[in-house]
Amino acid sequence: MIKDVNGESANLHAKCRGKVSIVSKVPVNTIDDLSLVYTPGVAEPCRRIAQNPEDVYTYTSKGNMVAVVSDGSAVLGLGNIGAKAAIPVMEGKAILFKEFAGVDAVSVCLDTQDSKEIIRTVQIIAPNYGGINLEDIASPRCFEIERALKDLIDIPVFHDDQHGTAICVLAGIMNAAKVVNKALSELVIVINGCGAAGSAIARMLIAEVSDIRLVDINGIINKNNPKTMLNWNHEELANLTNKKNLVGGLAEAVRGADVFVGVSKPGLLTQDMVRTMANDAIVFAMANPTPEIFPDEAKAVGAAVVGTGRSDLPNQINNALVFPGIFKGVLAARVKNITEDLKLAAAKALSGYIPADQLSSENILPSVLDKNVADAVAKAVYTAAVGTVNGSHV
Amino acid sequence: MIKDVNGESANLHAKCRGKVSIVSKVPVNTIDDLSLVYTPGVAEPCRRIAQNPEDVYTYTSKGNMVAVVSDGSAVLGLGNIGAKAAIPVMEGKAILFKEFAGVDAVSVCLDTQDSKEIIRTVQIIAPNYGGINLEDIASPRCFEIERALKDLIDIPVFHDDQHGTAICVLAGIMNAAKVVNKALSELVIVINGCGAAGSAIARMLIAEVSDIRLVDINGIINKNNPKTMLNWNHEELANLTNKKNLVGGLAEAVRGADVFVGVSKPGLLTQDMVRTMANDAIVFAMANPTPEIFPDEAKAVGAAVVGTGRSDLPNQINNALVFPGIFKGVLAARVKNITEDLKLAAAKALSGYIPADQLSSENILPSVLDKNVADAVAKAVYTAAVGTVNGSHV
Repeated sequence: MIKDVNGESANLHAKCRGKVSIVSKVPVNTIDDLSLVYTPGVAEPCRRIAQNPEDVYTYTSKGNMVAVVSDGSAVLGLGNIGAKAAIPVMEGKAILFKEFAGVDAVSVCLDTQDSKEIIRTVQIIAPNYGGINLEDIASPRCFEIERALKDLIDIPVFHDDQHGTAICVLAGIMNAAKVVNKALSELVIVINGCGAAGSAIARMLIAEVSDIRLVDINGIINKNNPKTMLNWNHEELANLTNKKNLVGGLAEAVRGADVFVGVSKPGLLTQDMVRTMANDAIVFAMANPTPEIFPDEAKAVGAAVVGTGRSDLPNQINNALVFPGIFKGVLAARVKNITEDLKLAAAKALSGYIPADQLSSENILPSVLDKNVADAVAKAVYTAAVGTVNGSHV
Repeated sequence: MIKDVNGESANLHAKCRGKVSIVSKVPVNTIDDLSLVYTPGVAEPCRRIAQNPEDVYTYTSKGNMVAVVSDGSAVLGLGNIGAKAAIPVMEGKAILFKEFAGVDAVSVCLDTQDSKEIIRTVQIIAPNYGGINLEDIASPRCFEIERALKDLIDIPVFHDDQHGTAICVLAGIMNAAKVVNKALSELVIVINGCGAAGSAIARMLIAEVSDIRLVDINGIINKNNPKTMLNWNHEELANLTNKKNLVGGLAEAVRGADVFVGVSKPGLLTQDMVRTMANDAIVFAMANPTPEIFPDEAKAVGAAVVGTGRSDLPNQINNALVFPGIFKGVLAARVKNITEDLKLAAAKALSGYIPADQLSSENILPSVLDKNVADAVAKAVYTAAVGTVNGSHV
């Protein structure tokens, strides 16, 4: 790990003046070139698209172009830092899209935090893009924005903090369950933190596991305890989770649970808590950069598999394993909606990427640097979307 | 010239799936790379921008990134073809920005033609860009959008159809006047077509020449003749032009005039009309692809200098000579407004690019393929903006 990662990062960003650049895919050196890429020839693709709007995918960059959209309201652990300060993160995602999946992406940070304006703005700029990656938008606003856009625009919309995280966590739990020889469908899972990521993990996992217990700032979310439900999102989730009607805090939630998933704050999961979990507990402590508990601490008191968000520890759980491949797949298949089926296909592809004989308590997910992961995810998503793999597309 | 420019252009666009692509300016191969360009290191540039918003120019691509914004309402000669069909033109501009001036640019075609929504949308997405190039927006809506945005956002806004054209025409007239030994300040100029381009040419030239006569669909714009003033823009211009209070159509306007500038329709300027112009008439017939009159026809009846929009004829008058350099200059100087002074500096740099001893009736403007033009324009604009040339910026 780099010693002064902050200072070096600032220097690198300043030296390059940001991380993305635009290039031409066509030559512009002769009068003939100009007459094809600009006037008068460019009128012909325009005419064809005007006659048949679907031709925009044939004659423009739209089909491979993703907008990484944020209002800067919930950026990393930094909170509400606004549009300008969010740009380095969105440019970071843009280059991961390109480097890992060959997908073009641009930062679209919005100078408004009004849901209606965000929705309308994305709708208005949508013609340029093949997909919308929502990012770092505060909960619960992020849910209504995503739902509205899915109805309003004809390209896929994906809130990565929700679904990228959920897919990655599900893939990790699938493999961790194999390592400890437990059936996925019998797992009881505690999710600590019920914002965008925690909520989406809960919604994605609930169909696959035995029960989920969600813990937020006022304790275990419980449909009989209004204090624990801070908004309509919590109310929805209260009806899907906590079958045993538990009350209390994190300590009460983890007792007897098979899995802890932390999308919360450093240090919140104590060794005493881990001791009360089921045998061979699985702990995903994803608070960044300092996890809810460090792997050596959790393992010392009985955890069998521990993952974190950190690249310097085993089992890094990182959305970068997911979003490049998901978009590559849906752009190739040109699907309008990233359905539950497609997300599940992505999770299965990601967990299946590790061969059975290489699975271990320290190897449940591929490296984020493995540039073949996105292809595997994309092929699975594409196959699920169109029922076949067409090599020329994926 | 290519025989089937339309067919070949469509093929080229389809083969490349559009003309622009995004690339990373930084390597993403190791865990250290990732920790600098993405989490956790990326948090540091975010923090610094949050503390000091001007740092967005240091740590992101904003400072060299232009949005080419259109509502698709007046695209080339194709008219109101909408957002999707306009994208090939905006991508074309984007690659000219890059190839000629090293400026990054992206298509931002808007799925609305409501002025207020366009203004608000551009304001909301402005944080990502160092400048806004408005393009192919119908007149007179384009004027109010540009004026509003100049007040509302803190980056330069430039409507290329207006000001790019006006700067190029002024530069051409400056040199054509030298060729025919007439003083710029004594020229009487007829502009046929009073939309975005014609209006901006009139506004820019009026301070430099003797008189301007604007002709639109109902004849010479005349402040005493309400029928000739179709909107507030025409009313404003009626008070600035037509000193002799002429009435009539194009035939009446060109009688005795030194210069004809056509931003109108094919074939509108007849040989009979050119015969009535002053000696050594200058004719800029810029309708595309078929000019208001062809050079050989105009010269046969006394025109001394003829320019068109076509690349296969001498004296091509093309905005591509202007917008890349203008933006390169203002981005380097980080000016908030592209003032009349800066536009005039650009026009003078463009006309001055042709050495006096190389000026001729067939050489009044440089080739659009000359990639040093943008640098010359940028340096002049930068100098006018900050009073000095800093080699490391331009």
